[in-house]
Amino acid sequence: MKYLININDLTTDKILKIFNKAQSLNNGENSNKSLEGKSIANLFFENSTRTLVSFELAAKKLGADVINVNITTSSTQKGETLRDTIQTLQAMGIDAFVVRHSENGVCDQIKSWLNKNTALINAGDGNNQHPTQALLDCYTILQHKPNIHSLKVSIIGDIKHSRVANSLIDCLYILGNRNINLYGPKQLLPIKSEKANICLNFNQAIKNADVVVMLRIQKERIAQHNIAELDNYHEKFGLNREKLKIAKPDCIVMHPGPINREIEISSELADNPPSVILEQVNNGVLIRQAVLIKLIVG
Amino acid sequence: MKYLININDLTTDKILKIFNKAQSLNNGENSNKSLEGKSIANLFFENSTRTLVSFELAAKKLGADVINVNITTSSTQKGETLRDTIQTLQAMGIDAFVVRHSENGVCDQIKSWLNKNTALINAGDGNNQHPTQALLDCYTILQHKPNIHSLKVSIIGDIKHSRVANSLIDCLYILGNRNINLYGPKQLLPIKSEKANICLNFNQAIKNADVVVMLRIQKERIAQHNIAELDNYHEKFGLNREKLKIAKPDCIVMHPGPINREIEISSELADNPPSVILEQVNNGVLIRQAVLIKLIVG
Amino acid sequence: MKYLININDLTTDKILKIFNKAQSLNNGENSNKSLEGKSIANLFFENSTRTLVSFELAAKKLGADVINVNITTSSTQKGETLRDTIQTLQAMGIDAFVVRHSENGVCDQIKSWLNKNTALINAGDGNNQHPTQALLDCYTILQHKPNIHSLKVSIIGDIKHSRVANSLIDCLYILGNRNINLYGPKQLLPIKSEKANICLNFNQAIKNADVVVMLRIQKERIAQHNIAELDNYHEKFGLNREKLKIAKPDCIVMHPGPINREIEISSELADNPPSVILEQVNNGVLIRQAVLIKLIVG
Repeated sequence: MKYLININDLTTDKILKIFNKAQSLNNGENSNKSLEGKSIANLFFENSTRTLVSFELAAKKLGADVINVNITTSSTQKGETLRDTIQTLQAMGIDAFVVRHSENGVCDQIKSWLNKNTALINAGDGNNQHPTQALLDCYTILQHKPNIHSLKVSIIGDIKHSRVANSLIDCLYILGNRNINLYGPKQLLPIKSEKANICLNFNQAIKNADVVVMLRIQKERIAQHNIAELDNYHEKFGLNREKLKIAKPDCIVMHPGPINREIEISSELADNPPSVILEQVNNGVLIRQAVLIKLIVG
Repeated sequence: MKYLININDLTTDKILKIFNKAQSLNNGENSNKSLEGKSIANLFFENSTRTLVSFELAAKKLGADVINVNITTSSTQKGETLRDTIQTLQAMGIDAFVVRHSENGVCDQIKSWLNKNTALINAGDGNNQHPTQALLDCYTILQHKPNIHSLKVSIIGDIKHSRVANSLIDCLYILGNRNINLYGPKQLLPIKSEKANICLNFNQAIKNADVVVMLRIQKERIAQHNIAELDNYHEKFGLNREKLKIAKPDCIVMHPGPINREIEISSELADNPPSVILEQVNNGVLIRQAVLIKLIVG
Repeated sequence: MKYLININDLTTDKILKIFNKAQSLNNGENSNKSLEGKSIANLFFENSTRTLVSFELAAKKLGADVINVNITTSSTQKGETLRDTIQTLQAMGIDAFVVRHSENGVCDQIKSWLNKNTALINAGDGNNQHPTQALLDCYTILQHKPNIHSLKVSIIGDIKHSRVANSLIDCLYILGNRNINLYGPKQLLPIKSEKANICLNFNQAIKNADVVVMLRIQKERIAQHNIAELDNYHEKFGLNREKLKIAKPDCIVMHPGPINREIEISSELADNPPSVILEQVNNGVLIRQAVLIKLIVG
């Protein structure tokens, strides 16, 4: 296993092995330096702090050398193709690429240019996939609720354009969950889904939920789709403590970040239990460490 | 002690402990790797080379993992609040934040968002404080003149808008010096000061001085205050070897850098004794190493 | 030996010692950490990915601390001179500078500001020199053809403005080669050369060649010199498998990168033998490691 491009490439067994590795890293294996002498290149063609820093920290903690390729000053500006950039870096001895790109499927292309010993992780491509986010989300759920297959999980917001939602739905499905519920503005919901229920209203989505995942709404989308104004967004599609009352009493609340406070979620709820947002962030580093180890040294 | 936000938070005793640590780092303790396994995030919201690189080198020499958060491509552009940025990075396992910001007091806010184990260093906030600069300045003075309380120290230039001057005055005062003398263009001098004498002319400020600290004058200020033209600035407020003659024969000359050559100081004087400008730079790394060790591992 | 500014500063003997070091690094000496505790600053005043990353990886693999000085946010914007930037970084404990600059000869200036223990590598200055590129090119040639002095080497493209060509011609000449052949658009060829033959046409340049080096043509130059359109460039001055037939059967094809595909070289040829372009990239890291070791620890 040298690639993590699409969460659907993983089986339940492989996912659980990654979770076990993350767990053992958390339990004192923090001095693990199994990537010493390895070189990792972060190629982020989209702005990012949290995912980039998460991968950077994960790699450095394991002793790897990390190169953040500054795309804006890179040779791609001189007309070098992505293929040449990748193959040049590979020839320099890069052991793993972590790639974020606005285009769907770019990692499948990149994979075809790599030697069999070079690893590749999709850190988010267009509105397609963000597999390490799905893993950290499910790992966080499992820490709170071991019986993941029997949970009601609700995902609220812009499902249609969200690689986070896509990957999470897929990952939950692989792990056996058949009670995934989607809700959001009509224009931002898929018409149908093979793996999830599309809910008719907020209450239906949230009622008796064990896990509620609020997605970031991009203001550009609201403007673009003429959806309503921001205040209305919170009223119709945002979460706060009052609205959460119809979920299960021990329901947890998640968000991939960055948060639009008082839009998709109230500040009060985001910053206090049952929000597990910062646990997700913390788990993100562990999951990325686990994935890097699996892909680079096996 | 987990924070260094304002030099006034330190006692003489604490300052001298930092100086001792810097001294021992200089004496062969250079292979000190006491920050191995620790992660430090540099968050610079203002342009900087010297302070950023100084902190980066200090941390790396001690074995820490360093993350330079690129603010212009960060999530703050996506509307994430500073609080979310800090708490997200903290959840990822950052052990210390080094923050430069154009706004006064921003570190007090940040402090309120941190866990009790996370360290915080103010690397310059607005025109308020720059405590590690004050420490390295006083450490440099002490290397040349052990009786710091009995020295005549002159600080010349834009006192009013200078966090360097503010912090240095405070630090000298804590260390017992009561002969701090300020001079500069009228519009850039405070009207009164509890800790320093405001001088009426250049000669009064410099006469018999043991230490002269020349401050960087920002050209924007000269334009803004219609102070005079640049040539005149050097004549009225700048230092050169001739003008230095009325100071003590063993007077040392300091500048926090970057220098405007031939404006606040002549090139000839800046580049030769009794200028100790490059010693200040060298001591900066040692002082920052000492502070990082004190705050992170105690 | 603390500087590598111009390839002409090296003798055959010194060059071969660097090659031997590169060779031994390649043969399992990959765990060489001889730069641990050393600090290297990359100062790139021109955009670059490949050379910057190559130096960064070389240094990190050897255990050095690496500082990439971000020029656009640096104090040079505040009006600090290059001299002050260099001397400040040196005072912070930088052991070696790697400098790329658009101005010819800038490293000679920088050298005059350095202490005798600080190393300096020219990573490309204007259209003057790029010595580590010449070294990696000759090292790659030697891996394929040990008798370098008896080879016919052809360099095709914009010779006049190319630091790569200049350095390579000089390096081949030092190593005893007297059969260097240049060809390209008339406006981009020197009128005469003491070390190389200027060819009258493509066939003369390529015929029976052992090594063909294709140079990157900058589109700006084509526009500037009204040379012809891009399609014509490939026809007249570009290389493909068909045109290569008149070279020796075991001729190798080189390019410093980044490549303009289908302009100076066909994609098909660039990506397959006898192209050794990715070997050059791979060797680049080894050569830079060898040079860093020689200059910093001797």
